[in-house]
Amino acid sequence: MPAIMQNFEFHNPTRVIFGAGQIAALARHVPAHARVLMLYGGGSIKANGTYDEVRAALAGLAHPLLEFAGIEPNPRYETLMRAVQLVQREQVDFLLAVGGGSVVDGTKFVAAAAVYDGDPWDILKTGGKVVQAALPFGAVLTLPATGSEMNSASVISRAATQEKRAFMSPHVYPRFSVLDPAKTLSLPLRQVGNGVVDAFIHTTEQYLTYPANAPVQDRFAEGLLQTLLELGAQVLARPDDVEVRANIMWSATMALNGLIGVGVPQDWATHCVGHELTALFGLDHAQTLAIVLPGILQVRRAAKRDKLLQYAERVWGLREGSEEQRIDAAIASTRAFFEQVGVPTRLSAYGLGAEAIEATVAALEAAGLTGLGERRDITPGDVRRALQLSL
Amino acid sequence: MPAIMQNFEFHNPTRVIFGAGQIAALARHVPAHARVLMLYGGGSIKANGTYDEVRAALAGLAHPLLEFAGIEPNPRYETLMRAVQLVQREQVDFLLAVGGGSVVDGTKFVAAAAVYDGDPWDILKTGGKVVQAALPFGAVLTLPATGSEMNSASVISRAATQEKRAFMSPHVYPRFSVLDPAKTLSLPLRQVGNGVVDAFIHTTEQYLTYPANAPVQDRFAEGLLQTLLELGAQVLARPDDVEVRANIMWSATMALNGLIGVGVPQDWATHCVGHELTALFGLDHAQTLAIVLPGILQVRRAAKRDKLLQYAERVWGLREGSEEQRIDAAIASTRAFFEQVGVPTRLSAYGLGAEAIEATVAALEAAGLTGLGERRDITPGDVRRALQLSL
Repeated sequence: MPAIMQNFEFHNPTRVIFGAGQIAALARHVPAHARVLMLYGGGSIKANGTYDEVRAALAGLAHPLLEFAGIEPNPRYETLMRAVQLVQREQVDFLLAVGGGSVVDGTKFVAAAAVYDGDPWDILKTGGKVVQAALPFGAVLTLPATGSEMNSASVISRAATQEKRAFMSPHVYPRFSVLDPAKTLSLPLRQVGNGVVDAFIHTTEQYLTYPANAPVQDRFAEGLLQTLLELGAQVLARPDDVEVRANIMWSATMALNGLIGVGVPQDWATHCVGHELTALFGLDHAQTLAIVLPGILQVRRAAKRDKLLQYAERVWGLREGSEEQRIDAAIASTRAFFEQVGVPTRLSAYGLGAEAIEATVAALEAAGLTGLGERRDITPGDVRRALQLSL
Repeated sequence: MPAIMQNFEFHNPTRVIFGAGQIAALARHVPAHARVLMLYGGGSIKANGTYDEVRAALAGLAHPLLEFAGIEPNPRYETLMRAVQLVQREQVDFLLAVGGGSVVDGTKFVAAAAVYDGDPWDILKTGGKVVQAALPFGAVLTLPATGSEMNSASVISRAATQEKRAFMSPHVYPRFSVLDPAKTLSLPLRQVGNGVVDAFIHTTEQYLTYPANAPVQDRFAEGLLQTLLELGAQVLARPDDVEVRANIMWSATMALNGLIGVGVPQDWATHCVGHELTALFGLDHAQTLAIVLPGILQVRRAAKRDKLLQYAERVWGLREGSEEQRIDAAIASTRAFFEQVGVPTRLSAYGLGAEAIEATVAALEAAGLTGLGERRDITPGDVRRALQLSL
């Protein structure tokens, strides 16, 4: 019997302020009398002018604008706990994330941990269940990829234990996010490609499962995938085209703001496995996804058969050949697209081999992640086979 | 030079609670100590059980649940002002709309007018600009069509002057909307067809304009249109299929919650003309839209050429023949679809003729609505020609 659309709640209160020059709007959205802490990463926001624009927009705040710099890609618990201490010491009551998904994710954790009465690691250990409140915060996004600017999720790494864990809470939706595509023109193309792959795979995690009679969600997901395919090619051909960047930015936000996932089964096995690869070997998040997804689709081709055929036809226009051939072609095309936008899909491209697969499988087992995917039945053995297809 | 995506803000704080049986969730979302007024229409909610379910869900309120019945289709200012008086007299501080778009629209007006210090007609005269606050309210939707359950717009008619006017305000987003598709199974098929046509034309108003390099918005709109085409046929074939109703419901909500319209030009000429037809002749809202749209598309085929060709190909699969033939076929197919779902597209089907066209044109001129559409250049003469194509 085919599945049906599940009951759901959808509530996304984040205000998106989109377009070139919109950083000036910050003054309307940051409370003028708040004690504001700006959080950012390694300094690229100073090189591309974002830092100065934010400071100028917030020149009218009643209190000095405080700063916390140095949030790294795959933001670290240890780093963020220093920000939590600063927040508490300076009685900060509004946070402003300025950067990419890592800075936004890190700010979400700081917002929740700063007012949490207990060991802040609980927040990650429970996936956010213990979060009862958080400081309000906004974001200025400079790297489209994760969707963190319009969702309630955050992924944090703990260096001491090589763990990478996610949490979600309705308390950590950004109050607002400023999305200025012009600020993404200075990104290295590696990060642009990563962002496109990340958004693409956020979409497939919510789409390439099994049919649930949810045609709106399906077509929105297919629309995002088709658009990202076009944009991936366009951004390589015209890296200075701000319109291409604008559409990448909006696609990435829409790919993970909850909308395409309402009422439908979700997979996320690729992300679970990818998190272990990043924790163990330091690969970029999108690189891990590009390695894992093609193999997962092959290993799960029976369970995902109906949606893979739909994907082949609607996203890739594959209508010729047998069903098996179309599925193979769709998976191969997916891999080729990731490579095209500069994200290698094979472990060997990152200097990794079979030993990395065993370490990843062992890490999943140690974390109890032994039943992944939309049916919670992807075993460590399935993951091994999937990764072996991307050696 | 092609247009580019415009800067925008998107903020939709309505919580959607979707699925069969969700009315029971009201207890979690209506403040227990509020003085609550339930507003509804002509009593169909009593016949289909919704009324009893709402009462049961809210049995634990601290104060008695008050009622205001009799909000009509195309809700009337005169009726709603009686509800405003009741709200003020009973110190109501939370409203609950239970019904279709007319009840939700009417409740929005009551919410704003009850706390407005001045002549409430100002709210409609200014399109909502004077609204500074509104009572909080939720909705239980029983008729999918208008999208009012997840947007900030409302259309109200004034019987005394035969006027039909809209207002919008960020203060009148529902706090929550319960969407239970099972509650729509008892609708007469005429209302189901109306709802499908209404959602379809809400989408075309935001899509059939001119290209703005907004591929996500385009594909989301196309996805809704394709889905509504499928659902229109399915609901006729399987009127008891709650899954079909669920997808109609979600399509209608997504068609007008602001998302597909961000950053792109919008038309709304069909709605403006349709409102006059309803005000003058009492036609259902969707009936007027079905009459007006095909003619508007013909009269504006040059200005809308690029998007009409895209619509022909992506929504109707029309790839053969000349460009002019494909446009003609797309418009004819659109008209045929409205007829198929039981909404006649010709004035004569409603007993109206050329004199109705002149009255409509005169009403538009009297209201100063002389430059309609995405370029504000559709004249009363254009409207006359458009309506003559639907005699």
